[in-house]
Amino acid sequence: MTVHDTIRPIRWDADRLWLLDQRALPAREVYLDYDDPAAVTEAIRDMVVRGAPAIGVTAAYAAVLAVRRRYAADPAGWRAAVAADLAQLEAARPTAVNLHWAVARIRRRLAELDGDPVPALLAEAQAIEAEDLAANRVMGRLGAALIEPGTAAVMTHCNAGALATAGFGTALGVIRQAFAEGRLGEVYADETRPWLQGARLTAWELAREGIPATLLCEGAAAALLRSGRVSWVIVGADRVAANGDVANKIGTYGLAVLARHHGVRTMVVAPTSTVDLALADGDAIPIEQRAPEEVLCCAGQAVAATGVAAWNPAFDITPAALVDVLVTERGVVHGPTREAVAALFERPPS
Amino acid sequence: MTVHDTIRPIRWDADRLWLLDQRALPAREVYLDYDDPAAVTEAIRDMVVRGAPAIGVTAAYAAVLAVRRRYAADPAGWRAAVAADLAQLEAARPTAVNLHWAVARIRRRLAELDGDPVPALLAEAQAIEAEDLAANRVMGRLGAALIEPGTAAVMTHCNAGALATAGFGTALGVIRQAFAEGRLGEVYADETRPWLQGARLTAWELAREGIPATLLCEGAAAALLRSGRVSWVIVGADRVAANGDVANKIGTYGLAVLARHHGVRTMVVAPTSTVDLALADGDAIPIEQRAPEEVLCCAGQAVAATGVAAWNPAFDITPAALVDVLVTERGVVHGPTREAVAALFERPPS
Repeated sequence: MTVHDTIRPIRWDADRLWLLDQRALPAREVYLDYDDPAAVTEAIRDMVVRGAPAIGVTAAYAAVLAVRRRYAADPAGWRAAVAADLAQLEAARPTAVNLHWAVARIRRRLAELDGDPVPALLAEAQAIEAEDLAANRVMGRLGAALIEPGTAAVMTHCNAGALATAGFGTALGVIRQAFAEGRLGEVYADETRPWLQGARLTAWELAREGIPATLLCEGAAAALLRSGRVSWVIVGADRVAANGDVANKIGTYGLAVLARHHGVRTMVVAPTSTVDLALADGDAIPIEQRAPEEVLCCAGQAVAATGVAAWNPAFDITPAALVDVLVTERGVVHGPTREAVAALFERPPS
Repeated sequence: MTVHDTIRPIRWDADRLWLLDQRALPAREVYLDYDDPAAVTEAIRDMVVRGAPAIGVTAAYAAVLAVRRRYAADPAGWRAAVAADLAQLEAARPTAVNLHWAVARIRRRLAELDGDPVPALLAEAQAIEAEDLAANRVMGRLGAALIEPGTAAVMTHCNAGALATAGFGTALGVIRQAFAEGRLGEVYADETRPWLQGARLTAWELAREGIPATLLCEGAAAALLRSGRVSWVIVGADRVAANGDVANKIGTYGLAVLARHHGVRTMVVAPTSTVDLALADGDAIPIEQRAPEEVLCCAGQAVAATGVAAWNPAFDITPAALVDVLVTERGVVHGPTREAVAALFERPPS
């Protein structure tokens, strides 16, 4: 069964990169256009686009903009300037590894190219986008097959949907597919403070597709899991270490502990571009600390007393032992271990 | 060591009840005045005043307003009208038992009175207020004694401070006392969605007293507890069942599970007016469901897509087994059980 979806947060059109401004959702659906790679770096930092795979695809197109600009300015000496552009791009956000993965792939492709690199590099960026979309569709089918028909409800955190990827989504891809196959009744979504990705993005995606969705505050998750209504917690990932430890949106770790406590299973859905075999375990994953103002203010208004600090890590680490299933486009790993994660890379994509 | 505090959310002055409007904090410090008991019922429902002990004290003064009004209108037949007023008052919020406790105490006092009941009833309300303040000071000392000198940090949830009581606070009373005694370095406070009591009220109280305070989103609590920086989770309660199960602000249960998972202890601080011996266990405690708009909107603006539901329970139940210590004004119970809770009522207040 092929499930259609129409949300595309990243478009290449009329020789420019267009990003759906996720800061304006759900109130306004606005695409911003870019031809300056530095502006794309800024857009990633400001979360015009977010979500590990989406950041990777965006970076690939930003590299095309960088190469086009530098090659036009200096057809002989463009490589040094592009190297600096790519280094800036890579520093935009530290945790999601797809950014580094995409830039590394672009660097390898650039090293092979002679003459005008732009057409071949654009093809590479388009391939990265198409592969991400295809991986999501494969993961959707693999993950949905794990959800028992007649499942009343699953829960998700943050947004691992079409908006976080080239399209279709990772965790929401599994949920889309499972709902379309009639396996699943409804979805509970954490609102996901401080940025409210659940309320603003996940709810928007689910409402658009007619999948029954109920928001809750993170604080209500334990009571929901205790109620027995939810069978799975299904989330994406920003980086998976070689041993299967998972960096994902702050709150994921607590949710995984609570799920295990209540006999609810945790499914992590992420393409292998999110797996970082260079890092032994989750402790090595850099965790981005974001501005305290994201917590001290709400919808643009100060809510906290002055003189108070805020601790605002954007991600946390869920140990592999709390992950019941890791779903990738290369296959499903039950109870991820170092060996099982390594084995994913020894077989061809599904 | 006596710790001074100056925050009084409830005042009886110039023959009227004055409530500090907690919806306006921390931006504005405004007292609203009441001489109509129905308006006080409304104020409790709208959270002008909140926190179990504060609701109890407020209800006692609302009863004075009711009796004054009904006795003036009909010195012979006022009792039926007052009974209706008290029934309305009792229905304002379902979970905090102090409301019922205070109204029951007022009813008993009224049954004893002949002639003009107002002076004696006002004295009863003032006694309830004074006893609550005194209980908080006792609990502050008992709880602080459990906090090892040199403790780097503790964590709290929602607001169980002066604002939630007649003054000084339950959980924040312990924290105030421990900080004044030099036992404690700093406090982490959950922002406490959806109403942001942590950001708006707890942070305001702590900042006012110069206690170093750091806010975090509920989703970050698990990572904080994993970091080893926090030794205790200290919270108040809205109702404690006979077996020691605790109803408190939504998110408390999850925090207690996470604390236990990380070897952090949980302390519940509540006067015996919060203990409901009539209920066998937490499953019998009514849980208030509040309007979905509290989740779907933020600071008055819609944040979620239209067509999405919200699940918004105001409280959850923490099983007694997850409570390491229950601190009351009648003494401390380590690992509450039905027998240990019952025994509290067999000894005089400390």
